[in-house]
Amino acid sequence: MTRRPHRRDPEGHRQAILDAARASFGERGFARATVRDIAARAGVTHGLVLRQFGSKEQLFLAAVPGHRELDEVIAGDLETLPERVARGYVERMEANAAVDPLVVLLRSIASDQQAATKLYSAMEASSIRAYREVLDGEDVAARVSMLGAQLIGVTVNRYIARTGPLAELPVPALIDHLSRTLRHILFAA
Amino acid sequence: MTRRPHRRDPEGHRQAILDAARASFGERGFARATVRDIAARAGVTHGLVLRQFGSKEQLFLAAVPGHRELDEVIAGDLETLPERVARGYVERMEANAAVDPLVVLLRSIASDQQAATKLYSAMEASSIRAYREVLDGEDVAARVSMLGAQLIGVTVNRYIARTGPLAELPVPALIDHLSRTLRHILFAA
Repeated sequence: MTRRPHRRDPEGHRQAILDAARASFGERGFARATVRDIAARAGVTHGLVLRQFGSKEQLFLAAVPGHRELDEVIAGDLETLPERVARGYVERMEANAAVDPLVVLLRSIASDQQAATKLYSAMEASSIRAYREVLDGEDVAARVSMLGAQLIGVTVNRYIARTGPLAELPVPALIDHLSRTLRHILFAA
Repeated sequence: MTRRPHRRDPEGHRQAILDAARASFGERGFARATVRDIAARAGVTHGLVLRQFGSKEQLFLAAVPGHRELDEVIAGDLETLPERVARGYVERMEANAAVDPLVVLLRSIASDQQAATKLYSAMEASSIRAYREVLDGEDVAARVSMLGAQLIGVTVNRYIARTGPLAELPVPALIDHLSRTLRHILFAA
């Protein structure tokens, strides 16, 4: 009944690492979880985890729900991109804000600034790459960064502080407000 | 050479309390500072502090730079309000982000959720009151809350994580991006 993958099974290794990462990040938080512990839980070497995922930040983004769905959300009709991003974000947060990467990031700022900064950086770089697939222009990076800032602010307000007008808005009204702001940030001249 | 105010000097009391509050919040952070300690430093009673300021949250907002200038920024030509808010925010953060109330709030989220929530609530309520002086409409509260979310997100990105496109934008470009987003949030139909 061991769940360790066979040594010659790379896809099994990958899944075992992701399962171990979710367990470890869930128990210890982002800053205190280590690649070494995750590798041990998955029954693989530290080196294999880093070869497959690159860094603890990349592993986190691959393991937790939320960020990894971004490519799917971005693919599709450009005209309705802001609505899809707003709806995807709100539905994901309403379902399970406590373990969302944005919440984990924000909660780790005070306890471990350096870890939070690395995670922020990885999350933002990966978002910018994803949006560049569908958006042109020299200021795409700044626009995506502003979009990320808007989502972080809503996260702090509605899903962490949980008080005030944004926290009290019904879901459809929140999606509507957010869609319009994101449309402006992404597309306005 | 005592700096304690005379008992019959309410304005002196007020200033002594504000000085003591700044010192205490600076040394201990928002969550660990207490009204009792601030009163003792100012040489007044706990009850007097609460009568003059209402709560620790209100005292914080009155004592620290940043939020208390909001009324001045909001007064003036409505047409240029977004630019004034963006410029006021950016200049204040560029000058001294480390002690800014938004940064204090964000850093206290992980260590003391309840304190951070109360402070968020007080800050937001006071912003909404200030904007209601110049803006009409039933969704003013939600708009101000979205505006606050945008500023919080930029704070996390540029002034706490300090990495990525928003952190690297020159000040005039940041003010420009932010002005346009805030204009949309405040005024768009």
